[in-house]
Amino acid sequence: MDPKLGRTTLKEWVAIESDSVQPVPRFRQELFRMMAVAADTLQRLGAHVTSVDMGSQQLPDGQSLPIPPVILAELGNDPTKGTVCFYGHLDVQPADQGNGWLTDPYVLTEVDGKLYGRGATDNKGPVLAWINAVSAFRALEQDLPVNIKFIIEGMEEAGSVALEELVEKEKNRFFSGVDYIVISDNLWISQRKPAITYGTRGNSYFMVEVKCRDQDFHSGTFGGILHEPMADLVALLGSLVDSSGHILVPGIYDEVAPLTEEEINTYKAIHLDLEEYRNSSRVEKFLFDTKEEILMHLWRYPSLSIHGIEGAFDEPGAKTVIPGQVIGKFSIRLVPHMNVSVVEKQVTRHLEDVFSKRNSSNKMVVSMTLGLHPWIANINDTQYLAAKRAIRTVFGTEPDMIRDGSTIPIAKMFQEIVHKSVVLIPLGAVDDGEHSQNEKINRWNYIEGTKLFAAFFLEMAQLH
Amino acid sequence: MDPKLGRTTLKEWVAIESDSVQPVPRFRQELFRMMAVAADTLQRLGAHVTSVDMGSQQLPDGQSLPIPPVILAELGNDPTKGTVCFYGHLDVQPADQGNGWLTDPYVLTEVDGKLYGRGATDNKGPVLAWINAVSAFRALEQDLPVNIKFIIEGMEEAGSVALEELVEKEKNRFFSGVDYIVISDNLWISQRKPAITYGTRGNSYFMVEVKCRDQDFHSGTFGGILHEPMADLVALLGSLVDSSGHILVPGIYDEVAPLTEEEINTYKAIHLDLEEYRNSSRVEKFLFDTKEEILMHLWRYPSLSIHGIEGAFDEPGAKTVIPGQVIGKFSIRLVPHMNVSVVEKQVTRHLEDVFSKRNSSNKMVVSMTLGLHPWIANINDTQYLAAKRAIRTVFGTEPDMIRDGSTIPIAKMFQEIVHKSVVLIPLGAVDDGEHSQNEKINRWNYIEGTKLFAAFFLEMAQLH
Repeated sequence: MDPKLGRTTLKEWVAIESDSVQPVPRFRQELFRMMAVAADTLQRLGAHVTSVDMGSQQLPDGQSLPIPPVILAELGNDPTKGTVCFYGHLDVQPADQGNGWLTDPYVLTEVDGKLYGRGATDNKGPVLAWINAVSAFRALEQDLPVNIKFIIEGMEEAGSVALEELVEKEKNRFFSGVDYIVISDNLWISQRKPAITYGTRGNSYFMVEVKCRDQDFHSGTFGGILHEPMADLVALLGSLVDSSGHILVPGIYDEVAPLTEEEINTYKAIHLDLEEYRNSSRVEKFLFDTKEEILMHLWRYPSLSIHGIEGAFDEPGAKTVIPGQVIGKFSIRLVPHMNVSVVEKQVTRHLEDVFSKRNSSNKMVVSMTLGLHPWIANINDTQYLAAKRAIRTVFGTEPDMIRDGSTIPIAKMFQEIVHKSVVLIPLGAVDDGEHSQNEKINRWNYIEGTKLFAAFFLEMAQLH
Repeated sequence: MDPKLGRTTLKEWVAIESDSVQPVPRFRQELFRMMAVAADTLQRLGAHVTSVDMGSQQLPDGQSLPIPPVILAELGNDPTKGTVCFYGHLDVQPADQGNGWLTDPYVLTEVDGKLYGRGATDNKGPVLAWINAVSAFRALEQDLPVNIKFIIEGMEEAGSVALEELVEKEKNRFFSGVDYIVISDNLWISQRKPAITYGTRGNSYFMVEVKCRDQDFHSGTFGGILHEPMADLVALLGSLVDSSGHILVPGIYDEVAPLTEEEINTYKAIHLDLEEYRNSSRVEKFLFDTKEEILMHLWRYPSLSIHGIEGAFDEPGAKTVIPGQVIGKFSIRLVPHMNVSVVEKQVTRHLEDVFSKRNSSNKMVVSMTLGLHPWIANINDTQYLAAKRAIRTVFGTEPDMIRDGSTIPIAKMFQEIVHKSVVLIPLGAVDDGEHSQNEKINRWNYIEGTKLFAAFFLEMAQLH
């Protein structure tokens, strides 16, 4: 293996605080550094690398922030071979040490075979596993069985800002020779059994702002005579979903694909130990009691989550404030064949209805700040077969054929723009905790994942 | 007037950054300096002054900070005269220049007859007005018409730490000869018309925690199968108060004092320009349209405010998190004759009812973290009559007889421990902005307030 490459370990990458969610200059600098380090790594591997300037981003508060470059890299250009394009991202969710983290989130720390650190599994580890697989062929001085391309971005956690425009622009250039697209940005649904993902939910993220005035009030001086924005907001948020998880927005289930007998059978085939799932999730009781119901409500039915409130009192302790202006945040995970803009209208109309019945003198503004389509693929495509074979070779087992309840908007985007088959080959175990405290990737997954990608290259070469 | 006393002006006192809210050593030093300056001022006036060591305070983070001394001062000891005790505080709320302040908050600055500065009205100005009134008698070489005592603390804005224990300890010593207690720590409800305050609301502060697990969840990975803590919490908070401000906790209004015809008349007598009130509050529309309803809902009816949520996503931007554990915070302002512990039971039982109907597998814990009794006085007590007469003499008008919607716990505390009549004689105008940016006291209020206290001493001597 190239000794220069040896320096770029997962530890070094995790140490870079490439948080794309918090829009502050310090993190943006870290993102630029992250992309530069990755570009350098790929160059040392012999790839032809282009770092595409993505311009800048206008934030709602008027601030302008630069967008980190997207890396387009190419290895091999043999027209007799298939071309596989790997997508990954190197930005991460926010992480505050102390806030539930047992280790420094930006210091990769191994405990009992688990590598803890922000981005370890989402998505720095899998990006490096792919790079490691390529470098293994290089180290063995073997030709790559397929042509390989990389598209690596730094804004995924912030909604892949401006990526779609780039893919559109590169459709007939960078993507012209691409046959297959692989993404490794989700998780297995078990601790030890690999999986292949053929569908993801979409997402529509809403903000509902209720405003009385800019400044807060003192609850002694004004409590009792105001339409308090928090009372309005709590009523609005409380009208969205019932205690059984059923979404109360009228019409929201109208376009959900009907359930077929065949589809039910795919859920039955999946091994899911509910007891273990409950234990590893550390959830005492789910909304549903059977494996099939749980999988369907994660994958093929929409869900609504309330994330929080901006502008209210959110610190420890007691403060007798009446917030003057608050923003409630919630999102709906979308499934085939729900339509983002229809959902936007349904939610807006519903909130307006609820608000108008309150006769409040406050101002309410509803906005959908993110609308991502659900995605579903044909599981008989070549690369699905190749991935299955590679999994049999490396892990000695059939994969779970799963969907992902999360949104991986780029899957849908690649499918729609590039018109090529997309497959998701997750590397991480179900308990990796992406987006949460104590995110980790198992050392075993990281290493076997590297082998899996190498085997996948070989299988693709055979099947193409 | 004693030339030595002339040195201690309001300007010098405001220049001392006696912030008790921010628990940092620098401000504590300023607080000690403030109390020493005040003790010195009272000594020069001829008072017998004791600075009571209050020990130290353990903060939640483990840090220990010294509590500034409480000043107990006595002037005169004539058993034929009544004894009036004045309570005041010399600590202030935080103030950051730049953060909305048009002048340096710690440099008393006169603009158009307004004296801007942190603590100008809350509470350094009124404390000095009382001292000035005493010094006026000294300057005229007249005997004081009443015996005068001072209790002055430096931790009011931080919850009067350890004050109650001191008052309890001094009940039969310092307070043994006290007949009346006067506090000047609130505001008029008009710009020009003086007021006497005979009641304040209490407060009960609640935290309701809903927990699924310590860690947060990703809404893609878990959305659809969880009893989400935020959905539970929003339903709990949404069950507390309706859109007309009516509290929905069963039994909560049972002990609220019935409204008498006589009481209604006191509200009618108060001058309140609703248009001006709306404008200065920058609130488009209140819950009520008449002066009487507004005053009653600020003073004699309970109110419930939802302050915020700890543990949810509270920052700008979008984060697809399902918070694992959230704490909702709300408080109820209490009025006569509501009982803190009854309210605690009613709220707890109500939330338990609502929660049990949801069949949630989460854990809910309700706690009341603060319970402060409402206070109301008999407006026919001697010192109320004396204050009214003094106001007629100095201002040529009848005072507004008002209550305060906020909690001034020391009023209730003095009444309960010392068993003496308490009166609140505010000096500041409604727009003084205590606790907010650009706090001020009008020069006119400061000077007429000094006269008012001198006249009050004379009236007390006559009526006692």
